[in-house]
Amino acid sequence: MSRKYRVGILGATGTVGQRFIQLLQDHPQFEITALAASDRSAGKPFAEACAWKLAGTIPEFTRDIAVQAIEPPLDCDIVFSSLPSSVARETEEAFARAGYPVISNSSSYRMDEDVPLIIPEINGDHMGLIKRQKEKRGFSKGFIVTNPNCAVISFAPPLAALHRKFGVESCIVTTMQSISGAGYPGVASMDILDNIFPYIAGEEPKVETEPQKILGVFTENSIENADFAISAQCFRVPVVDGHMVSVRVNLKDTATLEEVVDAMKTFPSLGLHSSPDRFIDITDEPSRPQTRLDRDSGYGMTISVGRVFPDNIFDYRFVALSHNTIRGAAGCAVLNAELLISKGII
Amino acid sequence: MSRKYRVGILGATGTVGQRFIQLLQDHPQFEITALAASDRSAGKPFAEACAWKLAGTIPEFTRDIAVQAIEPPLDCDIVFSSLPSSVARETEEAFARAGYPVISNSSSYRMDEDVPLIIPEINGDHMGLIKRQKEKRGFSKGFIVTNPNCAVISFAPPLAALHRKFGVESCIVTTMQSISGAGYPGVASMDILDNIFPYIAGEEPKVETEPQKILGVFTENSIENADFAISAQCFRVPVVDGHMVSVRVNLKDTATLEEVVDAMKTFPSLGLHSSPDRFIDITDEPSRPQTRLDRDSGYGMTISVGRVFPDNIFDYRFVALSHNTIRGAAGCAVLNAELLISKGII
Amino acid sequence: MSRKYRVGILGATGTVGQRFIQLLQDHPQFEITALAASDRSAGKPFAEACAWKLAGTIPEFTRDIAVQAIEPPLDCDIVFSSLPSSVARETEEAFARAGYPVISNSSSYRMDEDVPLIIPEINGDHMGLIKRQKEKRGFSKGFIVTNPNCAVISFAPPLAALHRKFGVESCIVTTMQSISGAGYPGVASMDILDNIFPYIAGEEPKVETEPQKILGVFTENSIENADFAISAQCFRVPVVDGHMVSVRVNLKDTATLEEVVDAMKTFPSLGLHSSPDRFIDITDEPSRPQTRLDRDSGYGMTISVGRVFPDNIFDYRFVALSHNTIRGAAGCAVLNAELLISKGII
Amino acid sequence: MSRKYRVGILGATGTVGQRFIQLLQDHPQFEITALAASDRSAGKPFAEACAWKLAGTIPEFTRDIAVQAIEPPLDCDIVFSSLPSSVARETEEAFARAGYPVISNSSSYRMDEDVPLIIPEINGDHMGLIKRQKEKRGFSKGFIVTNPNCAVISFAPPLAALHRKFGVESCIVTTMQSISGAGYPGVASMDILDNIFPYIAGEEPKVETEPQKILGVFTENSIENADFAISAQCFRVPVVDGHMVSVRVNLKDTATLEEVVDAMKTFPSLGLHSSPDRFIDITDEPSRPQTRLDRDSGYGMTISVGRVFPDNIFDYRFVALSHNTIRGAAGCAVLNAELLISKGII
Repeated sequence: MSRKYRVGILGATGTVGQRFIQLLQDHPQFEITALAASDRSAGKPFAEACAWKLAGTIPEFTRDIAVQAIEPPLDCDIVFSSLPSSVARETEEAFARAGYPVISNSSSYRMDEDVPLIIPEINGDHMGLIKRQKEKRGFSKGFIVTNPNCAVISFAPPLAALHRKFGVESCIVTTMQSISGAGYPGVASMDILDNIFPYIAGEEPKVETEPQKILGVFTENSIENADFAISAQCFRVPVVDGHMVSVRVNLKDTATLEEVVDAMKTFPSLGLHSSPDRFIDITDEPSRPQTRLDRDSGYGMTISVGRVFPDNIFDYRFVALSHNTIRGAAGCAVLNAELLISKGII
Repeated sequence: MSRKYRVGILGATGTVGQRFIQLLQDHPQFEITALAASDRSAGKPFAEACAWKLAGTIPEFTRDIAVQAIEPPLDCDIVFSSLPSSVARETEEAFARAGYPVISNSSSYRMDEDVPLIIPEINGDHMGLIKRQKEKRGFSKGFIVTNPNCAVISFAPPLAALHRKFGVESCIVTTMQSISGAGYPGVASMDILDNIFPYIAGEEPKVETEPQKILGVFTENSIENADFAISAQCFRVPVVDGHMVSVRVNLKDTATLEEVVDAMKTFPSLGLHSSPDRFIDITDEPSRPQTRLDRDSGYGMTISVGRVFPDNIFDYRFVALSHNTIRGAAGCAVLNAELLISKGII
Repeated sequence: MSRKYRVGILGATGTVGQRFIQLLQDHPQFEITALAASDRSAGKPFAEACAWKLAGTIPEFTRDIAVQAIEPPLDCDIVFSSLPSSVARETEEAFARAGYPVISNSSSYRMDEDVPLIIPEINGDHMGLIKRQKEKRGFSKGFIVTNPNCAVISFAPPLAALHRKFGVESCIVTTMQSISGAGYPGVASMDILDNIFPYIAGEEPKVETEPQKILGVFTENSIENADFAISAQCFRVPVVDGHMVSVRVNLKDTATLEEVVDAMKTFPSLGLHSSPDRFIDITDEPSRPQTRLDRDSGYGMTISVGRVFPDNIFDYRFVALSHNTIRGAAGCAVLNAELLISKGII
Repeated sequence: MSRKYRVGILGATGTVGQRFIQLLQDHPQFEITALAASDRSAGKPFAEACAWKLAGTIPEFTRDIAVQAIEPPLDCDIVFSSLPSSVARETEEAFARAGYPVISNSSSYRMDEDVPLIIPEINGDHMGLIKRQKEKRGFSKGFIVTNPNCAVISFAPPLAALHRKFGVESCIVTTMQSISGAGYPGVASMDILDNIFPYIAGEEPKVETEPQKILGVFTENSIENADFAISAQCFRVPVVDGHMVSVRVNLKDTATLEEVVDAMKTFPSLGLHSSPDRFIDITDEPSRPQTRLDRDSGYGMTISVGRVFPDNIFDYRFVALSHNTIRGAAGCAVLNAELLISKGII
């Protein structure tokens, strides 16, 4: 491809916005041409508006870009959005209506029945909803595509592997989520140093409902959600990045341990630019995955799974881990955009 | 009572041994007269043999006590044992045979069918097993009494409250356990800083089997274990003290949320010296219990419970927390000794 | 004393305000009769206005107290202030003018030449400034007394011990300060987990100037500051409570290591209610003081000193530690109030 | 260069040994042909002998290499050594005597007057000592070259920049060192979680003496050490990687702040494979460098400096940071080997 897509980032100064910049800065298909943030930042050079919180220093090329207000038009072909959900609903619609494909990491539209909620390796076919969305909402060129909650992305992939082969009947998850999931300033250090914090506002309902849509079946312009129940308890733990999830699952069909492991291990990655070599990396080392050692697997795009065992009450149990601001946020959105290009939708 | 019982501590230099010393130093019923530790330490003044790891400095009165080898006789009436399980089995039997009541925190004898496994508030009547134990093993005066695994003690109390009222059918637990549970040097800092470690050797089987014995029924010299299944996934997390447990439970009888809360709230504490005002402290604040804020509740002897809700798959879910080296180890053993005195067994 | 002084707390919902409540709740000389906080909280029951962040739960007796606005009159004899410095200057003056003794932990008035800056064990005689303050400011009954910055309190006591005996010529300090020093929400967890943060706004100038006033000489209604220089570099580190300070010091007179240690060890505590048994606790264990193990020494009111050695460049070096929200804030203020009572000033 | 040098790693299973493997696995000049570790490991496949502790999984190509005993001969041209100092002295000599260039990260030979102690950017000319070393010790082909202590490498570079331009007269350093500096299992988590640990065995003397040799002048087969004094207090802090150092320095010649900054900023990097773009990266952002954000600068090979200010007592103060297991250990050794090749010594 000779020309790169010009992209704008909505919420560019936030922690997910910064991840977008990091992941897109040397991307062969995209070039950043617009950075938008709250009114307070608008007009300032990005280096001044943004307190860079990722390792390393703020990328040189962004330093002097003037931050724009978060409203169309922006000088770009596509927008990536990491807006807080409070403002995302109205703003993302405005961009879609103005003709921009909106690749969103916000929760606002995830559960709308005409909006794709996508993990590319699992349910890329749900992009078919875009046609219905445009009709229903009267969008001409623009549309909204979302990726799931960052905790969901840790366990939905192994669940998908099992669901596809054996059918999932029910699933218990207990999450141990990193502080970066809450943005900046986000979690107060007094709430998390030498502490486990048992509550993340709004998280458990998301974790209990998004996977059924992702694992749903797309037919004739709609998704029929998968019909299993999820129980989620969500904890904040003192780690910087990486969401670890403890999982028990009941299957509809009988499966041996070997078949269960094999289903996960052979779940294919896609050949897209940001695709990891392995979508699901499964280990039989008793003490893996570990948050710090495995979160960067596949440049943060691989799901690490381990401790897969028969369970006393459920059929199987296992542990799953992913990087919450890469695979669980900006990286999944970028992969969504790559998928849309490969499908010819943008 | 005018005279204090003279007590010896087996494994006095370890972290649980140090907690024993801390809890017993101003105790109205006990005075420490013997400190025993591994051969390497034997003969040295305690202050020299012991790297004190609790807050504050080593208690003055212990400094010059000469550490003795871990073998009978010791100059005391009772021994508290926090020996590693590798040596506990043989050594504790030797002490019991030599006539000492052995109050043990080790796992070696917990599941022996003639050895009481006690949380005093729950199953003090299981002390009745001592008679059978003495007969079976040919002990004259001595005997062995144990307390449960430190993670078990976090959730067995609320489980007991529910089991007594409604019957427990099955139970899922996911533990987030502190580093002090592994003693010293214990967990390497490289394994736990900015990390969640998904494996604790030997822990899950203990957590899945001990509660059924504790909640079992004592009849005619034996325990009939409770007949529910437990599924446990155990994680080490970067907190100093306090084991947090995420719990789902199915009940045999129907119970409203209010009844569930009430069953826990009204579970009685005992009037013993080390008993907390409340055995189970239950809160409806959404972000409690927290490990750092609640582990010292009731001087480390209270179980903190919160986030009690109906569950999507099980009947109820909740979060439980206790201090693992006080309520979950030395404190529970001391309470066991107080119970034995109150029952006239020692 | 039959009657207790009735006290009001300004900034009662903050972390230092909470420490005031904790320290005063069973105090023999004080009873809390008024809690004041920002307009947002005024009128609400304290339990609702305050997010309690100390270990344990909010003290029962405070739950239903209606929070008042931070302005006189309040129904009390004395006010303790932990107001942010932005509002402290005006508000504390208003209370003093209205007749209240104001015992302040804020930085606003510390360096005013007519305001005592007190560590009771060191410079209680500086309370003599109150007379001048009242005259100068036209206060009738009220006045303002302050305690130092929390990092200063970690090393000013050993420095005072040396200054009194040998004269201090210069002093280098490097501080490693806990997160609780910044209040709540204070330090963002993203800024401190697995991190050392090299900057605390406004801290280095305070640390470089307050000790000279504290160690100054009170004569004829004024303080002649001590005439040595201090160099301070201040770091935030991932610990919950406790400020550790690395110190080098040059002395005016020659002193042996033994004399240096002795000067610190024999520096007297006062016999006041909140006085620790030892003001300065000095150890020769190579690995002490440690922040977590020693911060609670003397119920948080003792200064722990160790690693006292001759230095390659300065005369001596040592490490000093204190609890920043007890000895370094609320506890020092309470001790100031006790001193004022013992001197008959209130 | 067509052929790669074949290298062996002594102490391959340790944390620095693992860093060697990580840094050498895709290196254009070296290929790993031998892995040696303690007798306990010898004979086992590396994957079995080594508990891999770096992020990611053990490199595939090492899995089946049979670990050899740590004694010559090994099938390689050069050895990198990260042996514990207890065994390094004897073993490294044996390898040198057997004809191997030994690039050592151990402390054993650092201060021997005929052994180069090298930071390549600073004192590569000290490699001239090798000739004398061979003569003195009767080595034919082999020799020993060392790199400094990991804390020294954080501040020696800015010190060198100043020494070269203005002369250093004296220097105060206070270090905040990460846990990875102590290897595995290394620091017990009980000693460092929510804690500052004020003692690192043997560290302060190394930090106070190595820089004078590094900044010494090589003339006629010997080093004349730089003649300034260093005072070091060394602390272990709860961060995974990265040593932060607080520095004050007196200069022999007068220098403006601008000149000081400029001297550091312009200190050249070398053009070797592992050289970072900038040897010293200097910032004027008030809150940088931070350990977590800056330790990986220049792939862990850059020294980050900030907070350069005039000091109240010394001429200047600043903060310096480097990655202790890359720039401070394995990375510096690899750079030493690259330097030796570029100089034609190997």
